Amino acid sequence: MPVTVGRIEIERKFLVPEPPGDLDRYPSTAIEQGYLAIADDGTEVRIRRRDASATLTVKSGGGLSRVEEELEIDGQRFERLWPLTGGRRIEKRRYEIPTGDGVTLELDVYDGKLGGLVVAEVEFDSEDAAERFSGPDWLGPEVTDDERYKNRRLACEGAPS
Amino acid sequence: MPVTVGRIEIERKFLVPEPPGDLDRYPSTAIEQGYLAIADDGTEVRIRRRDASATLTVKSGGGLSRVEEELEIDGQRFERLWPLTGGRRIEKRRYEIPTGDGVTLELDVYDGKLGGLVVAEVEFDSEDAAERFSGPDWLGPEVTDDERYKNRRLACEGAPS
Repeated sequence: MPVTVGRIEIERKFLVPEPPGDLDRYPSTAIEQGYLAIADDGTEVRIRRRDASATLTVKSGGGLSRVEEELEIDGQRFERLWPLTGGRRIEKRRYEIPTGDGVTLELDVYDGKLGGLVVAEVEFDSEDAAERFSGPDWLGPEVTDDERYKNRRLACEGAPS
Repeated sequence: MPVTVGRIEIERKFLVPEPPGDLDRYPSTAIEQGYLAIADDGTEVRIRRRDASATLTVKSGGGLSRVEEELEIDGQRFERLWPLTGGRRIEKRRYEIPTGDGVTLELDVYDGKLGGLVVAEVEFDSEDAAERFSGPDWLGPEVTDDERYKNRRLACEGAPS
């Protein structure tokens, strides 16, 4: 079973072919994320707005020492920068769904050119908990290690067909 | 005679094959500028430090409505981001040289992989003043409209041979 370990983050990711019909019961936030530029060496600069808060983040590509710098930006600056991310965007609504065993599932319902795609992510405290996880029966195929479902690939290349 | 007009900026740019020997008489500042990423559509993100002040700037590429957003960053953040600009950098010392007729010449002495390159820039209030300008006799060939001497080209491609 694939488990991603990195920066003490243990996550699993699943496709959701048929999301539950009662999503509106759960708290949700709109997320807009767009890439301003991505360098050949993998350095990327993106902006993201989640509800009222917006950030600009610079991330290094691969290599030994990873760098990630996050700057807060105000809403007006976000609005001015957003047009520069055309063709390199993700727009989605994220629902927080408790699964009963103390774990919260993040269900991302994509919009815009990624409309129709629904992905669930679960974060765990330990590899043990990740391995034990079964989750609701509407979880579809696991895509934890499928690079095509990384934000950046989705933003620039669209949904895998 | 080539004159660049844009955003009420009227500038002329010259190569300086043999800079004056008494540069240390003039006030100068060290400038480090590096590109984090440049998108195919021309959107660029760069960081710049001039003396104690550092900024991150996002600029759109061509197109109708140009966007330029400048964010101040602190010195520590600059230091963490600088390694991400490897191979896309400009390092230079800028000397401010008054020319006598109320005009100040900015003389950029490049360092690092651009070492040996010296370029003078002069900004004018009017096209008239730009056309009248003759300048000191150590000014070499004018390169105002030569794209190869734009910051971005110098940073990514090095000095024209």
